[in-house]
Amino acid sequence: MNIEIIAIGNEVLGGFTVNTNAAFISKSLLEEGFRVNRHMVLPDEEEQLRTGLKEALNRSDLVICTGGLGPTCDDITRKIAAQLFDSDFHYDHKIAEDLKKRFGDSLPSIIDQATLPSKAGILKNTVGTASGLIFKNQTTTLVLLPGVPPEMRAMWINSVLPYVKSNLPEMERYFYKKLYFIGVLENDVDKVLRQLQQRYSEVEFGIYPEQMILSVQLSAKADNFENAMAKLKWPYEDLKSQFSSNIFEAPSGKIEDAVHQRFLKKKSTLAIAESCTGGALSARLTKNSGASQYFLGSFVVYSNELKSEVLGVSEKVIQEKGAVSRETVEGLLKGLFTKTACDYGVAVSGVAGPSGGTSEKPVGTIWCAVGKRGTPPIIWQSRAYGNRETIIEGSVNIVLGGLLKILPE
Amino acid sequence: MNIEIIAIGNEVLGGFTVNTNAAFISKSLLEEGFRVNRHMVLPDEEEQLRTGLKEALNRSDLVICTGGLGPTCDDITRKIAAQLFDSDFHYDHKIAEDLKKRFGDSLPSIIDQATLPSKAGILKNTVGTASGLIFKNQTTTLVLLPGVPPEMRAMWINSVLPYVKSNLPEMERYFYKKLYFIGVLENDVDKVLRQLQQRYSEVEFGIYPEQMILSVQLSAKADNFENAMAKLKWPYEDLKSQFSSNIFEAPSGKIEDAVHQRFLKKKSTLAIAESCTGGALSARLTKNSGASQYFLGSFVVYSNELKSEVLGVSEKVIQEKGAVSRETVEGLLKGLFTKTACDYGVAVSGVAGPSGGTSEKPVGTIWCAVGKRGTPPIIWQSRAYGNRETIIEGSVNIVLGGLLKILPE
Repeated sequence: MNIEIIAIGNEVLGGFTVNTNAAFISKSLLEEGFRVNRHMVLPDEEEQLRTGLKEALNRSDLVICTGGLGPTCDDITRKIAAQLFDSDFHYDHKIAEDLKKRFGDSLPSIIDQATLPSKAGILKNTVGTASGLIFKNQTTTLVLLPGVPPEMRAMWINSVLPYVKSNLPEMERYFYKKLYFIGVLENDVDKVLRQLQQRYSEVEFGIYPEQMILSVQLSAKADNFENAMAKLKWPYEDLKSQFSSNIFEAPSGKIEDAVHQRFLKKKSTLAIAESCTGGALSARLTKNSGASQYFLGSFVVYSNELKSEVLGVSEKVIQEKGAVSRETVEGLLKGLFTKTACDYGVAVSGVAGPSGGTSEKPVGTIWCAVGKRGTPPIIWQSRAYGNRETIIEGSVNIVLGGLLKILPE
Repeated sequence: MNIEIIAIGNEVLGGFTVNTNAAFISKSLLEEGFRVNRHMVLPDEEEQLRTGLKEALNRSDLVICTGGLGPTCDDITRKIAAQLFDSDFHYDHKIAEDLKKRFGDSLPSIIDQATLPSKAGILKNTVGTASGLIFKNQTTTLVLLPGVPPEMRAMWINSVLPYVKSNLPEMERYFYKKLYFIGVLENDVDKVLRQLQQRYSEVEFGIYPEQMILSVQLSAKADNFENAMAKLKWPYEDLKSQFSSNIFEAPSGKIEDAVHQRFLKKKSTLAIAESCTGGALSARLTKNSGASQYFLGSFVVYSNELKSEVLGVSEKVIQEKGAVSRETVEGLLKGLFTKTACDYGVAVSGVAGPSGGTSEKPVGTIWCAVGKRGTPPIIWQSRAYGNRETIIEGSVNIVLGGLLKILPE
């Protein structure tokens, strides 16, 4: 069973849009035990698109495409797929009616978007205007989805995933378990994985570092989920026991989601003071729906004036010790407990770079403080690596890792 | 001339890591006039990886791979590439010395990372441990780069891009110009593009919507940049003149970058009050180095208490008009001018969803206020679409679009 995902569009191939659609579909399939064999990105260009699609249809049992279904001049996926499956087009009155109902009679693309290949099954778009399509012959299924992520995702969840689950043949599938680590070196984990690999030969191990977080994937082939989990149980427990204090639990692998879940359970509140992370720490938490249940707010005190005026850090401390110092983050944390009613507080200040580093405090240096009201804070120095973007991301991970440790489960 | 980019790794194919490397390399090549024909993602699995690599080498003149060069058990790219180019391995003392100098003698992966294919040119990794490799035969060049983005990027900029530019044959290349729009409908722009397409047949037009921003790409084939720009000049000016008040200028296409550039020039300061965007508005601006020159900070007043206690919005207003209202964002903006010394202020409050919407204020509704100290503010209601993530992103774009309009060039 070969599965392949194809994104179509010069904006992806030109690097203007990152291919998040393929990642989303792959992950969703993997959760059902289906491993994807290949991703491709093809241009909005007839000849290359036709060649690439033909290859994929010959090679794979299921080909899932995103993009190129819209009404604009560069959208040619529908036409080429119809040619490959020898299909003509018809005007679909039901689709046209639905578009009129949702977007009004004057939507200029109605005729285009309701003219669809006669041999294809139609997938309703509940968000935008382009219908999805399913073509099928003896050997292969081709699914065409819109490229705009929210449209694609809604269609995937509502129509395609149920179709795939009930139409794919009985087969051996891959199932996996993941473990996420914070505050541990890749090499230390790898050493343990190499030992486990010898002990458990049926299990595959993969290790992936990303901004101070390591994820390890254990996977096994089996005919169903339970049998795979039985194979994975011992290596998983083995690995977990060796790094227990550095592991966090979140299906997404995002440490903010682990923090979010724990706060939802605790019914405590949180406030943040952030400098070098510039709002990113707060944004990572509030991307989760329900954050308002515990998150009071964040003081993005980027300038030294705001650190003093808003959160009361003494100007003298900032001048003498620096904005990136134990004393400054301690002062920011105190300010949070004074200015808000938060139960927990987090403060971070660092050098995001590329400028501003010194030999004593190189780019990537951060000071963090986390605390619970009424108990002594935990304050520590750490370091994130890479460029400005990865330093900000790594800093958020580091400080949330520290916060997680003081949040009882 | 065919160019292809391949990412190798189960973490990408499984959707755990989004393939930003391909986007980065594609964009960089496009800026030099080289169009990439295909992206692929292949698994950490010998047979499939070998097959995929062989196909690419047969099809393309230049194949650029990222990933699978590390020291861990699942990294097999180096070995398979060496087999395809009939190369044995040798221990490279110079690389080993460099690794020892940068990471210390006890780095456990030194032997692995310094054992390299003898037929490959070596690209120095200035960030991490895995060297890049260049293989070459009569017809094809294969470049292997590490998968960790900051390592890949440094190596690309320092070594590969200069190599590619000086080694690729003289050829016709594609060059492009982009235009970015805010506050205009895709269909309205598309209508104009269809007219332009007929008038300028040598030019290709592409239109890409993304969270309230539209980008339009005009491209033309030519043997050098100047000749392409001559072909693009009139359609570009034509399009620009038809939408002048909705166009913004930023090479990245990010509206925060247009705002950033304008503030750097103006030497004015900015403060933000944000609720539904939860720190994302601030984070988008501070991801740019140099933001500290104008950005004082952001008050992420997520809870109603903080809106009142920190920025002085009257509790009565919030209760009677709601946190998402003209009066609330007006109050937040006033609070910014009182609490900080900012020259410009921005406030936004909305319903990010998925819960919290009403028939009067559906999910996606936002109220925005922008103003310059001492002048009347501009306050308006708008709407972003999609899921929580895209609503937050769209809201940031909408409010920055409003800010840009009151910032003189």
